[in-house]
Amino acid sequence: MQRIEQHASFGGRQEVWQHASSRTGTDMKLGVYLPPKALAGEKCPVLYWLSGLTCTEQNFITKAGAQQFAAGHNLIVVAPDTSPRGEGVPNGDAYDLGQGAGFYVNATQQPWTKHFQMESYIVDELPALIEAYFPASPARGIFGHSMGGHGALTLALRHPGRYRSVSAFAPIVAPSIVPWGQKAFKAYLGDDMAAWRAHDTVQLIAASAPGHRLPLLVDQGDADEFLATQLKPELLKAACEQVGYPFTLRLQPGHDHSYYFIASFIADHFAHHAQALG
Amino acid sequence: MQRIEQHASFGGRQEVWQHASSRTGTDMKLGVYLPPKALAGEKCPVLYWLSGLTCTEQNFITKAGAQQFAAGHNLIVVAPDTSPRGEGVPNGDAYDLGQGAGFYVNATQQPWTKHFQMESYIVDELPALIEAYFPASPARGIFGHSMGGHGALTLALRHPGRYRSVSAFAPIVAPSIVPWGQKAFKAYLGDDMAAWRAHDTVQLIAASAPGHRLPLLVDQGDADEFLATQLKPELLKAACEQVGYPFTLRLQPGHDHSYYFIASFIADHFAHHAQALG
Repeated sequence: MQRIEQHASFGGRQEVWQHASSRTGTDMKLGVYLPPKALAGEKCPVLYWLSGLTCTEQNFITKAGAQQFAAGHNLIVVAPDTSPRGEGVPNGDAYDLGQGAGFYVNATQQPWTKHFQMESYIVDELPALIEAYFPASPARGIFGHSMGGHGALTLALRHPGRYRSVSAFAPIVAPSIVPWGQKAFKAYLGDDMAAWRAHDTVQLIAASAPGHRLPLLVDQGDADEFLATQLKPELLKAACEQVGYPFTLRLQPGHDHSYYFIASFIADHFAHHAQALG
Repeated sequence: MQRIEQHASFGGRQEVWQHASSRTGTDMKLGVYLPPKALAGEKCPVLYWLSGLTCTEQNFITKAGAQQFAAGHNLIVVAPDTSPRGEGVPNGDAYDLGQGAGFYVNATQQPWTKHFQMESYIVDELPALIEAYFPASPARGIFGHSMGGHGALTLALRHPGRYRSVSAFAPIVAPSIVPWGQKAFKAYLGDDMAAWRAHDTVQLIAASAPGHRLPLLVDQGDADEFLATQLKPELLKAACEQVGYPFTLRLQPGHDHSYYFIASFIADHFAHHAQALG
């Protein structure tokens, strides 16, 4: 682990780190916000942020206005890159496949298998690293935006007990049936639809065991340019209602898919996570 | 005036506009944040933000976390570009001269005179446009960062009565005697040192008339990489003390020159301006 940036921020410190990942076989970068208590050496819960298509570790840390709330709640916030990158790493034909578009799954198909192991990276390697290098308690929350909202929801649902809280902004909730998800899943997971369903929030909700249900908080702009074609929050609402899954969906009038939307409501997401993470 | 971006943000709207400027002879872009009251048609005071070297109209509106406070105080916030740009506009040999480095002066030297008229643009053309196109009251405040902190301080001091409040983050307070300022002033204003002093905050403070003294609020990180070579806040402090100019300088421990520094203290600057613009 090598620190490549550090900036004082709201009484804490925004850092950027780089490390050689055993899961992706590449150097991975991540933003780490250390709140005042962590700088003083006290153990703090960790909130993981997963970004959307095209993003690096920079987007969230520069645009979301998260640090003031991370400081206020004394949460460490970790914002990893969205995929492996670099020469020798395969790439897609557009912004929605390959570098910048890891979709938080472990690829089983060529040429992606060697590097695109983002689920293992986020769920296993990264928390082990964070908990070894920083004053991090084992209390973990996870949230994200768009492709990263899909990541947060599916990783929390697929790994019961691993996270104590989850939320999302404009998540891709039904990747199996929308163009972004279908393109990525076909490439990374192949043609077997059962494998797709295992990474589809709507399908995971339907199959979830009543004992391990983390309440979901989802914000969605009603002027989001991807609402009808890629996001379809009504499918998540229906799935939650069908099985009685605890779920808050807030349709935010006039809001689009941008970080202006995220910044407007991030205070509420921090409050949601802080309550669960204590 | 043509609107090229709009995003819902904290109950108001972050917009980006473009217009053909008569002063710079180019198309100029600017960020405009409209708080909830302005969207409802009520006239609101206008706070002008001037950015630093290399910045466009985008840096402040995406990174400063200003919208929540603009919304809370119901201030319109206008963030213009830092210079004319485009083909046919002269440029310097580096980031600190020419495009992205207008220094908020009216150039008197070739090849800069035709387009680099940033003082007139900011002080005259821009407010006239804002007050014609938006529900803006005539109450104006001005603030900025680094080169833009220099801009805010000098424009407020050079145009008494034009602004009701002023503040700055890490301003260049003595451009006549530091490398950034000397390079720009030599190019834009020529070799006459009297012309330089007329755009130098420390010199303007020394010459200021007691009747028109807007209290200055200045934040400065003590880990700022440009502190000793380019910024020298101690010279502003000495000048203010010598003539009894009302002045608050806050040295912020551990803070650097970045937008993480600006975001950490922008709430206080909004409170400072809101009190005067109220």
